Amino acid sequence: MTAMSTMASEYELLTPETVASYIATNPTLAELVDASTLEVAEVGDGNLNLVFLCQDADGRGICLKQALPYVRLVGESWPLTPQRVLAESRSLSVAAAVVPHLVPAYYGTDEDRYVLAMENLFGWEIWRSKLNRGEIHRGVGALLGEYVANLAFSTSLFALDQMEVKQQTAQAINPELCRITEELVFTEPYIEHDNNSFVDELAPEVAALRSDACLRSEVGLLKHRFMTAAEALIHGDLHTGSVMVRSTDGRGDARVIDPEFCYYGPVGFDLGALIGNYLLARGRAAVLYRGAEYCEWVAGLAEETWNAFEANMRRLWPTRVDQTWTDGFLDAWLQQVARDALGFGGCKAIRRIIGLAKVSDIETLPPDEHLRAATMVLRTANTWIKERQQLGGVSAANEVFLEVEAAVMQND
Amino acid sequence: MTAMSTMASEYELLTPETVASYIATNPTLAELVDASTLEVAEVGDGNLNLVFLCQDADGRGICLKQALPYVRLVGESWPLTPQRVLAESRSLSVAAAVVPHLVPAYYGTDEDRYVLAMENLFGWEIWRSKLNRGEIHRGVGALLGEYVANLAFSTSLFALDQMEVKQQTAQAINPELCRITEELVFTEPYIEHDNNSFVDELAPEVAALRSDACLRSEVGLLKHRFMTAAEALIHGDLHTGSVMVRSTDGRGDARVIDPEFCYYGPVGFDLGALIGNYLLARGRAAVLYRGAEYCEWVAGLAEETWNAFEANMRRLWPTRVDQTWTDGFLDAWLQQVARDALGFGGCKAIRRIIGLAKVSDIETLPPDEHLRAATMVLRTANTWIKERQQLGGVSAANEVFLEVEAAVMQND
Repeated sequence: MTAMSTMASEYELLTPETVASYIATNPTLAELVDASTLEVAEVGDGNLNLVFLCQDADGRGICLKQALPYVRLVGESWPLTPQRVLAESRSLSVAAAVVPHLVPAYYGTDEDRYVLAMENLFGWEIWRSKLNRGEIHRGVGALLGEYVANLAFSTSLFALDQMEVKQQTAQAINPELCRITEELVFTEPYIEHDNNSFVDELAPEVAALRSDACLRSEVGLLKHRFMTAAEALIHGDLHTGSVMVRSTDGRGDARVIDPEFCYYGPVGFDLGALIGNYLLARGRAAVLYRGAEYCEWVAGLAEETWNAFEANMRRLWPTRVDQTWTDGFLDAWLQQVARDALGFGGCKAIRRIIGLAKVSDIETLPPDEHLRAATMVLRTANTWIKERQQLGGVSAANEVFLEVEAAVMQND
Repeated sequence: MTAMSTMASEYELLTPETVASYIATNPTLAELVDASTLEVAEVGDGNLNLVFLCQDADGRGICLKQALPYVRLVGESWPLTPQRVLAESRSLSVAAAVVPHLVPAYYGTDEDRYVLAMENLFGWEIWRSKLNRGEIHRGVGALLGEYVANLAFSTSLFALDQMEVKQQTAQAINPELCRITEELVFTEPYIEHDNNSFVDELAPEVAALRSDACLRSEVGLLKHRFMTAAEALIHGDLHTGSVMVRSTDGRGDARVIDPEFCYYGPVGFDLGALIGNYLLARGRAAVLYRGAEYCEWVAGLAEETWNAFEANMRRLWPTRVDQTWTDGFLDAWLQQVARDALGFGGCKAIRRIIGLAKVSDIETLPPDEHLRAATMVLRTANTWIKERQQLGGVSAANEVFLEVEAAVMQND
């Protein structure tokens, strides 16, 4: 761990064996569970952290998340400050105030060992896994639109004094985590890079993307916007693997997790992360669940999330602190956010096909289906990015997919 | 001065009588001039500072600028941190490295008494005064485009590592000074406010602006962009009163001063400040210098500045640090900057007719000429703001003026 020595002092990483004694010595946590009867499982499937799910003999639980000092997927060659747990606690604290029903309860952060404690979501499951199995969870898309709108409004110039926003923006810079997005989402997929990989049959599609000067300059504009548009404290990594889901009596419920990429950025980036990942699920659905009710439901997710986002922004709008933001401004700003969402959504989908971090939606498909789904995703994303100014909003997202799907299926 | 007690500890303001002894006790400054033979004049005509021009018996000079703890024009009721001299020294230091030929030499800052020392520009004069007299200074417009391009490029993601830009952006926040612009430029002119004033004959024009929902939402978008688009360290107040000018052998030379409003903002704002103030000069020229060579020259200033800005950006472009900013991206980004420049230029011109801080270009005109020039400015600015997406660039700025001018003159 020499690579991190300049970034943070050495600290002890937790193991399933040491978690109980760690909890026993922390008064706050020791009250939440009985450390002497604790069962602990390390379940971190992400790239940056250890995650311990703990349950005592009485069924009480706690989840500990400890930041690793490097990018797990790449290894110790990519050091990363563990202080990003402070970013996560920042976002969780804000969300606890404005959307407590959409995030896990937050129990505090150990800034010496970079450990964050939160609710153990027993019985919940990562949304992506459920999407992969073709499960319908009605209403989840709308809850995520509500999450984005409330977080965006409450941390922006619409709800806070300008002085407060500027100080928060400066305090919340998160350049190391942002760099991961900048490189993996906006740069590497469009150039030759060792981090990229894709099946040989996809090479012509990838070559076409890379030689498309218009696409490249639009992706550049989106990258520039990601790096300079400090609109609100955004989640920063809001894909379907950052959402826990369950359904009760046919209604889906959601908890947003893992906001460690949060920083002041463009609001459309969170919406784009969602609709880009809906597109990946839609690609899978088109080749695995064709004609099923599930397929129809996935096709409607982007619009469901957008409509809830817009409805919540309009609900909150009368409470804005500065009346010089007129109603006409809101309409114009929403249009800009929708365009951003389509563009960022396209970038988020493309990187999952070409770049370093793949997704199970596409990776677990049999070869023929994989190629068809990946092709649909790339072509749809390309159109979203290049035509986002003309498409007229997120409701067009699915229409673009349907056209691409028809062309791809006809060619088979 | 009780209002400032929470903002900065009390500090002694300089007077023409105390400047010599202040310089004598400062080793760096004492080497630059002979304090024992110093003549001192306080010439601050701005709103925020004391400015002392000093010259010794040998003709050597120095300029001291001391920040007042309040807005001079409003008085002690609007307190303002004197730490803004640190913002000015930040900008002067950067400019000294990248455009040393376009700024006064910088001698250092006294952070205890908020005094900044720089070159005394003997024989130079504020550009606005020269414009008011109808003086031509060829090439000054191009020098200012060069200034904006070099400052923007060298402090942006195009020249610096992303980590560096984010840390600089956070350190350079300047919320108190930005608030002045936000309120005086983007808010007050469009609502009833005690700070506003204009002649009665202009009331119908002002009422039309205020009831124009489209204009209001576009001004809102521009305000939002001013408050969230952290592209580069911009000057922040680059009007023709922030430029010192002189000519030698028919060639104009320029020094940019007063960068205390600097912060990471949209590059088009500096260009907009220039072309908005060119518009004010153009309005004066249309009623005072009609048909004269001067009038033609002023009409070409916006394009001259833009062309130099673009040429310098293109000259620097091959040195950018991240090749994922493609040539196509530069074209698209320049188009966006041009649109911003027209929009911000319109806002900067309108506030000078309606809002708190007026300009001599318009204020010193006789009543009939004042009304005609002010009307031309307001209508041109309105079109720039609302049609900036369609106008196709800064070269259209003057065409819009010519149409407005013809209509206003015909009505007389």
